[in-house]
Amino acid sequence: MGRWEPNARGRLEEAALALYGERGYEQVTVAEIAARAGLTERTFFRHYSDKREVLFAGSSLLREVLVKAVAEAPDGAPPVDVVGAALAAAGAVLEERRELARARQAVIDANPSLQEREVVKLATLATAVTEALRDRGIPEPAASLAAQSGIAVFRVAFERWIRETGQRSLPDLVRESFDELRTLTAT
Amino acid sequence: MGRWEPNARGRLEEAALALYGERGYEQVTVAEIAARAGLTERTFFRHYSDKREVLFAGSSLLREVLVKAVAEAPDGAPPVDVVGAALAAAGAVLEERRELARARQAVIDANPSLQEREVVKLATLATAVTEALRDRGIPEPAASLAAQSGIAVFRVAFERWIRETGQRSLPDLVRESFDELRTLTAT
Repeated sequence: MGRWEPNARGRLEEAALALYGERGYEQVTVAEIAARAGLTERTFFRHYSDKREVLFAGSSLLREVLVKAVAEAPDGAPPVDVVGAALAAAGAVLEERRELARARQAVIDANPSLQEREVVKLATLATAVTEALRDRGIPEPAASLAAQSGIAVFRVAFERWIRETGQRSLPDLVRESFDELRTLTAT
Repeated sequence: MGRWEPNARGRLEEAALALYGERGYEQVTVAEIAARAGLTERTFFRHYSDKREVLFAGSSLLREVLVKAVAEAPDGAPPVDVVGAALAAAGAVLEERRELARARQAVIDANPSLQEREVVKLATLATAVTEALRDRGIPEPAASLAAQSGIAVFRVAFERWIRETGQRSLPDLVRESFDELRTLTAT
Protein backbone atom coordinates (compact mmCIF):
# COMPACT_ATOMS: atom_id res chain seq x y z
CA MET A 1 0.00 0.00 0.00
CA GLY A 2 1.20 3.50 -0.77
CA ARG A 3 1.22 6.45 1.56
CA TRP A 4 -2.02 7.58 3.15
CA GLU A 5 -3.97 10.07 1.06
CA PRO A 6 -6.46 12.16 3.03
CA ASN A 7 -10.03 11.31 1.93
CA ALA A 8 -8.78 9.74 -1.31
CA ARG A 9 -12.06 7.85 -1.79
CA GLY A 10 -14.22 10.96 -1.52
CA ARG A 11 -11.89 12.98 -3.75
CA LEU A 12 -11.97 10.27 -6.41
CA GLU A 13 -15.75 10.14 -6.27
CA GLU A 14 -16.12 13.91 -6.63
CA ALA A 15 -13.58 14.00 -9.47
CA ALA A 16 -15.33 11.14 -11.27
CA LEU A 17 -18.81 12.69 -10.95
CA ALA A 18 -17.52 16.06 -12.16
CA LEU A 19 -15.81 14.50 -15.20
CA TYR A 20 -18.77 12.22 -16.03
CA GLY A 21 -21.03 15.26 -15.93
CA GLU A 22 -18.75 17.40 -18.08
CA ARG A 23 -17.68 14.93 -20.74
CA GLY A 24 -20.01 11.94 -20.51
CA TYR A 25 -19.42 8.73 -18.56
CA GLU A 26 -18.22 6.71 -21.56
CA GLN A 27 -15.49 9.19 -22.49
CA VAL A 28 -13.79 9.44 -19.10
CA THR A 29 -10.79 7.25 -18.18
CA VAL A 30 -9.56 6.17 -14.76
CA ALA A 31 -6.30 8.01 -15.46
CA GLU A 32 -8.26 11.25 -15.90
CA ILE A 33 -10.25 10.70 -12.71
CA ALA A 34 -7.08 10.10 -10.72
CA ALA A 35 -5.36 13.16 -12.21
CA ARG A 36 -8.38 15.37 -11.47
CA ALA A 37 -8.34 14.19 -7.85
CA GLY A 38 -4.57 14.80 -7.62
CA LEU A 39 -3.99 11.09 -7.01
CA THR A 40 -2.45 8.17 -8.88
CA GLU A 41 -4.25 5.44 -10.83
CA ARG A 42 -2.79 3.03 -8.31
CA THR A 43 -4.63 4.86 -5.55
CA PHE A 44 -7.84 4.78 -7.63
CA PHE A 45 -7.65 1.00 -7.88
CA ARG A 46 -7.12 0.66 -4.14
CA HIS A 47 -10.59 2.17 -3.68
CA TYR A 48 -12.60 1.17 -6.77
CA SER A 49 -12.35 -1.77 -9.15
CA ASP A 50 -13.34 0.34 -12.18
CA LYS A 51 -14.99 3.60 -13.15
CA ARG A 52 -18.48 2.14 -12.86
CA GLU A 53 -17.93 1.09 -9.28
CA VAL A 54 -17.52 4.75 -8.29
CA LEU A 55 -21.25 5.10 -9.03
CA PHE A 56 -22.40 1.92 -7.28
CA ALA A 57 -20.06 1.42 -4.34
CA GLY A 58 -22.63 3.07 -2.05
CA SER A 59 -25.15 0.28 -2.52
CA SER A 60 -23.43 -2.06 -0.05
CA LEU A 61 -23.71 0.63 2.65
CA LEU A 62 -27.41 1.10 1.81
CA ARG A 63 -27.94 -2.64 2.06
CA GLU A 64 -26.24 -2.76 5.47
CA VAL A 65 -28.33 0.15 6.76
CA LEU A 66 -31.55 -1.46 5.50
CA VAL A 67 -30.82 -4.92 6.88
CA LYS A 68 -29.72 -3.55 10.26
CA ALA A 69 -32.80 -1.33 10.57
CA VAL A 70 -35.11 -4.24 9.73
CA ALA A 71 -33.34 -6.47 12.27
CA GLU A 72 -33.51 -3.83 15.02
CA ALA A 73 -37.15 -2.79 14.57
CA PRO A 74 -39.34 -3.32 17.66
CA ASP A 75 -40.74 -6.80 18.15
CA GLY A 76 -44.18 -7.19 16.68
CA ALA A 77 -43.98 -4.10 14.48
CA PRO A 78 -46.11 -4.54 11.32
CA PRO A 79 -43.98 -5.46 8.25
CA VAL A 80 -44.82 -2.29 6.32
CA ASP A 81 -43.79 -0.14 9.30
CA VAL A 82 -40.54 -2.08 9.62
CA VAL A 83 -39.79 -1.52 5.94
CA GLY A 84 -40.83 2.14 6.11
CA ALA A 85 -38.48 2.81 9.03
CA ALA A 86 -35.62 0.98 7.27
CA LEU A 87 -36.11 2.98 4.09
CA ALA A 88 -36.25 6.23 6.04
CA ALA A 89 -32.92 5.24 7.64
CA ALA A 90 -31.44 4.58 4.20
CA GLY A 91 -32.87 7.92 3.09
CA ALA A 92 -31.08 9.66 5.96
CA VAL A 93 -27.75 8.30 4.68
CA LEU A 94 -28.43 9.69 1.22
CA GLU A 95 -29.77 12.97 2.60
CA GLU A 96 -26.26 13.93 3.69
CA ARG A 97 -25.03 13.60 0.11
CA ARG A 98 -27.79 15.32 -1.80
CA GLU A 99 -25.60 17.23 -4.25
CA LEU A 100 -23.47 14.17 -4.99
CA ALA A 101 -26.64 12.09 -5.38
CA ARG A 102 -28.00 14.60 -7.89
CA ALA A 103 -24.76 14.65 -9.87
CA ARG A 104 -24.70 10.84 -9.83
CA GLN A 105 -28.32 10.61 -11.01
CA ALA A 106 -27.68 12.96 -13.93
CA VAL A 107 -24.87 10.64 -15.08
CA ILE A 108 -27.10 7.59 -14.74
CA ASP A 109 -30.02 9.24 -16.54
CA ALA A 110 -27.75 9.90 -19.51
CA ASN A 111 -26.62 6.29 -19.90
CA PRO A 112 -29.01 3.34 -20.49
CA SER A 113 -26.54 0.69 -19.31
CA LEU A 114 -26.10 2.56 -16.01
CA GLN A 115 -29.89 2.83 -15.68
CA GLU A 116 -30.07 -0.95 -16.01
CA ARG A 117 -27.38 -1.34 -13.36
CA GLU A 118 -29.38 0.96 -11.05
CA VAL A 119 -32.55 -1.08 -11.56
CA VAL A 120 -30.62 -4.27 -10.77
CA LYS A 121 -29.19 -2.61 -7.64
CA LEU A 122 -32.68 -1.73 -6.40
CA ALA A 123 -33.83 -5.31 -7.02
CA THR A 124 -30.87 -6.56 -4.97
CA LEU A 125 -31.88 -4.23 -2.13
CA ALA A 126 -35.46 -5.54 -2.30
CA THR A 127 -34.16 -9.10 -2.00
CA ALA A 128 -31.99 -8.16 1.00
CA VAL A 129 -34.97 -6.53 2.74
CA THR A 130 -37.15 -9.57 1.98
CA GLU A 131 -34.58 -11.86 3.59
CA ALA A 132 -34.19 -9.59 6.63
CA LEU A 133 -37.98 -9.65 7.10
CA ARG A 134 -38.05 -13.45 6.85
CA ASP A 135 -35.28 -13.55 9.48
CA ARG A 136 -37.68 -11.68 11.77
CA GLY A 137 -40.20 -14.46 11.23
CA ILE A 138 -42.43 -12.57 8.81
CA PRO A 139 -44.01 -15.20 6.56
CA GLU A 140 -44.43 -15.15 2.81
CA PRO A 141 -45.99 -13.50 0.88
CA ALA A 142 -46.04 -10.66 3.45
CA ALA A 143 -42.23 -10.40 3.51
CA SER A 144 -41.89 -10.14 -0.28
CA LEU A 145 -44.89 -7.85 -0.67
CA ALA A 146 -43.71 -5.44 2.03
CA ALA A 147 -40.12 -5.40 0.73
CA GLN A 148 -40.93 -5.12 -2.97
CA SER A 149 -43.61 -2.49 -2.56
CA GLY A 150 -41.37 -0.67 -0.06
CA ILE A 151 -38.56 -0.45 -2.60
CA ALA A 152 -41.13 0.74 -5.15
CA VAL A 153 -42.15 3.51 -2.76
CA PHE A 154 -38.51 4.36 -2.09
CA ARG A 155 -37.85 4.66 -5.79
CA VAL A 156 -40.72 7.12 -6.23
CA ALA A 157 -39.61 9.13 -3.17
CA PHE A 158 -36.01 9.16 -4.40
CA GLU A 159 -37.04 10.49 -7.81
CA ARG A 160 -39.06 13.27 -6.17
CA TRP A 161 -36.09 14.12 -3.94
CA ILE A 162 -33.72 14.30 -6.91
CA ARG A 163 -36.07 16.35 -9.13
CA GLU A 164 -37.68 18.67 -6.61
CA THR A 165 -35.97 21.85 -5.57
CA GLY A 166 -38.02 21.94 -2.37
CA GLN A 167 -36.67 21.51 1.11
CA ARG A 168 -38.27 18.20 1.98
CA SER A 169 -35.72 15.63 3.11
CA LEU A 170 -35.56 12.15 1.61
CA PRO A 171 -36.70 10.49 4.88
CA ASP A 172 -39.71 12.85 4.88
CA LEU A 173 -40.46 12.04 1.24
CA VAL A 174 -40.20 8.31 1.99
CA ARG A 175 -42.71 8.64 4.85
CA GLU A 176 -44.98 10.84 2.73
CA SER A 177 -44.88 8.40 -0.20
CA PHE A 178 -45.74 5.51 2.14
CA ASP A 179 -48.73 7.48 3.40
CA GLU A 180 -49.79 8.10 -0.19
CA LEU A 181 -49.55 4.39 -0.97
CA ARG A 182 -51.73 3.70 2.08
CA THR A 183 -54.28 6.20 0.80
CA LEU A 184 -54.18 4.73 -2.71
CA THR A 185 -54.67 1.15 -1.52
CA ALA A 186 -57.38 2.14 0.96
CA THR A 187 -59.73 3.49 -1.73
CA MET B 1 -38.64 -14.72 -47.15
CA GLY B 2 -38.58 -18.50 -47.32
CA ARG B 3 -41.54 -20.83 -47.44
CA TRP B 4 -44.14 -20.71 -44.71
CA GLU B 5 -43.31 -22.95 -41.74
CA PRO B 6 -46.32 -23.85 -39.60
CA ASN B 7 -45.93 -22.27 -36.13
CA ALA B 8 -42.18 -21.78 -36.62
CA ARG B 9 -42.03 -19.20 -33.83
CA GLY B 10 -43.63 -21.46 -31.25
CA ARG B 11 -41.56 -24.46 -32.35
CA LEU B 12 -38.35 -22.43 -32.02
CA GLU B 13 -39.36 -21.24 -28.56
CA GLU B 14 -40.13 -24.76 -27.35
CA ALA B 15 -36.90 -26.11 -28.82
CA ALA B 16 -34.87 -23.31 -27.24
CA LEU B 17 -36.43 -23.75 -23.79
CA ALA B 18 -35.90 -27.51 -23.92
CA LEU B 19 -32.24 -27.11 -24.90
CA TYR B 20 -31.56 -24.33 -22.37
CA GLY B 21 -33.01 -26.53 -19.66
CA GLU B 22 -31.05 -29.60 -20.69
CA ARG B 23 -27.66 -28.11 -21.41
CA GLY B 24 -27.59 -24.60 -19.92
CA TYR B 25 -28.42 -21.37 -21.74
CA GLU B 26 -24.80 -20.38 -22.36
CA GLN B 27 -23.93 -23.64 -24.09
CA VAL B 28 -26.73 -23.68 -26.65
CA THR B 29 -26.29 -22.26 -30.16
CA VAL B 30 -28.88 -20.90 -32.56
CA ALA B 31 -27.93 -23.68 -35.01
CA GLU B 32 -28.87 -26.27 -32.39
CA ILE B 33 -32.19 -24.58 -31.62
CA ALA B 34 -33.09 -24.47 -35.30
CA ALA B 35 -32.11 -28.12 -35.79
CA ARG B 36 -34.15 -29.23 -32.77
CA ALA B 37 -37.17 -27.40 -34.15
CA GLY B 38 -36.63 -28.95 -37.59
CA LEU B 39 -36.06 -25.50 -39.09
CA THR B 40 -33.16 -23.54 -40.57
CA GLU B 41 -31.05 -20.88 -38.87
CA ARG B 42 -32.38 -18.51 -41.47
CA THR B 43 -35.90 -19.17 -40.21
CA PHE B 44 -34.73 -18.62 -36.63
CA PHE B 45 -33.44 -15.18 -37.51
CA ARG B 46 -36.69 -14.26 -39.20
CA HIS B 47 -38.37 -14.64 -35.80
CA TYR B 48 -35.72 -13.75 -33.21
CA SER B 49 -32.65 -11.54 -33.31
CA ASP B 50 -30.63 -13.87 -31.06
CA LYS B 51 -30.99 -16.68 -28.54
CA ARG B 52 -31.73 -14.29 -25.68
CA GLU B 53 -34.66 -12.73 -27.48
CA VAL B 54 -36.46 -16.09 -27.43
CA LEU B 55 -36.78 -15.54 -23.66
CA PHE B 56 -37.83 -11.89 -23.75
CA ALA B 57 -39.85 -11.46 -26.94
CA GLY B 58 -43.07 -11.83 -24.90
CA SER B 59 -42.48 -8.61 -22.99
CA SER B 60 -43.73 -6.38 -25.81
CA LEU B 61 -47.03 -8.28 -25.81
CA LEU B 62 -47.30 -7.90 -22.03
CA ARG B 63 -46.64 -4.17 -22.36
CA GLU B 64 -49.37 -3.84 -24.99
CA VAL B 65 -51.87 -5.74 -22.84
CA LEU B 66 -51.04 -3.61 -19.78
CA VAL B 67 -51.20 -0.27 -21.58
CA LYS B 68 -54.46 -1.18 -23.36
CA ALA B 69 -56.08 -2.36 -20.12
CA VAL B 70 -55.07 0.84 -18.31
CA ALA B 71 -56.40 2.97 -21.17
CA GLU B 72 -59.72 1.11 -21.30
CA ALA B 73 -60.46 1.02 -17.56
CA PRO B 74 -63.74 2.73 -16.56
CA ASP B 75 -63.60 6.51 -16.12
CA GLY B 76 -62.94 7.51 -12.54
CA ALA B 77 -61.67 4.08 -11.43
CA PRO B 78 -59.12 4.41 -8.59
CA PRO B 79 -55.51 4.08 -9.84
CA VAL B 80 -54.76 0.93 -7.85
CA ASP B 81 -57.88 -0.77 -9.25
CA VAL B 82 -56.87 0.25 -12.77
CA VAL B 83 -53.41 -1.24 -12.26
CA GLY B 84 -54.81 -4.35 -10.59
CA ALA B 85 -57.15 -5.02 -13.52
CA ALA B 86 -54.34 -4.44 -16.03
CA LEU B 87 -52.02 -6.84 -14.21
CA ALA B 88 -54.76 -9.46 -13.99
CA ALA B 89 -55.18 -9.11 -17.80
CA ALA B 90 -51.42 -9.60 -18.26
CA GLY B 91 -51.64 -12.56 -15.92
CA ALA B 92 -54.35 -14.12 -18.09
CA VAL B 93 -51.99 -14.00 -21.09
CA LEU B 94 -49.29 -15.83 -19.11
CA GLU B 95 -51.79 -18.27 -17.62
CA GLU B 96 -52.22 -19.88 -21.03
CA ARG B 97 -48.51 -20.67 -21.15
CA ARG B 98 -47.86 -21.92 -17.65
CA GLU B 99 -45.55 -24.81 -18.57
CA LEU B 100 -43.53 -22.65 -20.95
CA ALA B 101 -43.34 -19.91 -18.32
CA ARG B 102 -42.03 -22.41 -15.77
CA ALA B 103 -39.41 -23.74 -18.18
CA ARG B 104 -38.39 -20.17 -19.02
CA GLN B 105 -38.12 -19.19 -15.36
CA ALA B 106 -35.88 -22.17 -14.58
CA VAL B 107 -33.50 -20.99 -17.33
CA ILE B 108 -33.53 -17.43 -15.99
CA ASP B 109 -33.02 -18.55 -12.37
CA ALA B 110 -29.87 -20.39 -13.45
CA ASN B 111 -28.27 -17.37 -15.13
CA PRO B 112 -27.49 -14.07 -13.35
CA SER B 113 -27.28 -12.02 -16.54
CA LEU B 114 -30.74 -13.24 -17.56
CA GLN B 115 -32.04 -12.39 -14.07
CA GLU B 116 -30.76 -8.85 -14.59
CA ARG B 117 -32.48 -8.68 -17.97
CA GLU B 118 -35.73 -9.83 -16.33
CA VAL B 119 -35.47 -7.14 -13.66
CA VAL B 120 -34.88 -4.51 -16.34
CA LYS B 121 -37.89 -5.82 -18.28
CA LEU B 122 -40.13 -5.46 -15.21
CA ALA B 123 -38.87 -1.91 -14.70
CA THR B 124 -39.72 -1.12 -18.31
CA LEU B 125 -43.25 -2.47 -17.77
CA ALA B 126 -43.61 -0.30 -14.64
CA THR B 127 -42.61 2.77 -16.67
CA ALA B 128 -45.12 1.90 -19.41
CA VAL B 129 -47.91 1.54 -16.82
CA THR B 130 -46.91 4.84 -15.17
CA GLU B 131 -47.16 6.62 -18.53
CA ALA B 132 -50.51 5.00 -19.32
CA LEU B 133 -51.86 6.18 -15.95
CA ARG B 134 -50.61 9.71 -16.59
CA ASP B 135 -52.35 9.60 -19.98
CA ARG B 136 -55.59 8.96 -18.05
CA GLY B 137 -54.96 12.15 -16.10
CA ILE B 138 -53.72 10.47 -12.91
CA PRO B 139 -51.28 12.92 -11.31
CA GLU B 140 -47.90 12.22 -9.75
CA PRO B 141 -46.93 10.69 -7.40
CA ALA B 142 -50.10 8.56 -7.55
CA ALA B 143 -49.32 7.30 -11.07
CA SER B 144 -45.78 6.19 -10.19
CA LEU B 145 -46.76 4.76 -6.81
CA ALA B 146 -49.65 2.73 -8.23
CA ALA B 147 -47.58 1.46 -11.18
CA GLN B 148 -44.40 0.65 -9.25
CA SER B 149 -46.14 -1.01 -6.34
CA GLY B 150 -48.43 -2.81 -8.80
CA ILE B 151 -45.44 -4.30 -10.62
CA ALA B 152 -44.00 -5.25 -7.22
CA VAL B 153 -47.22 -7.10 -6.41
CA PHE B 154 -47.21 -8.75 -9.83
CA ARG B 155 -43.67 -9.95 -9.28
CA VAL B 156 -44.62 -11.58 -5.99
CA ALA B 157 -47.75 -13.15 -7.51
CA PHE B 158 -45.75 -14.40 -10.49
CA GLU B 159 -43.19 -16.08 -8.24
CA ARG B 160 -45.95 -17.80 -6.28
CA TRP B 161 -47.54 -18.95 -9.54
CA ILE B 162 -44.24 -20.37 -10.79
CA ARG B 163 -43.30 -22.11 -7.54
CA GLU B 164 -46.67 -23.34 -6.32
CA THR B 165 -48.09 -26.59 -7.54
CA GLY B 166 -51.59 -25.44 -6.60
CA GLN B 167 -54.37 -24.72 -9.00
CA ARG B 168 -54.70 -20.99 -8.46
CA SER B 169 -54.43 -19.04 -11.71
CA LEU B 170 -52.05 -16.12 -12.11
CA PRO B 171 -54.92 -13.59 -12.38
CA ASP B 172 -56.30 -14.98 -9.09
CA LEU B 173 -52.87 -14.76 -7.45
CA VAL B 174 -52.49 -11.16 -8.68
CA ARG B 175 -55.85 -10.22 -7.13
CA GLU B 176 -55.02 -12.09 -3.94
CA SER B 177 -51.60 -10.44 -3.64
CA PHE B 178 -53.20 -7.00 -4.14
CA ASP B 179 -55.64 -7.78 -1.34
CA GLU B 180 -52.71 -8.81 0.87
CA LEU B 181 -50.91 -5.55 0.10
CA ARG B 182 -54.10 -3.68 1.09
CA THR B 183 -54.20 -5.59 4.35
CA LEU B 184 -50.50 -4.96 5.02
CA THR B 185 -50.75 -1.23 4.39
CA ALA B 186 -53.98 -0.90 6.36
CA THR B 187 -52.40 -2.07 9.63
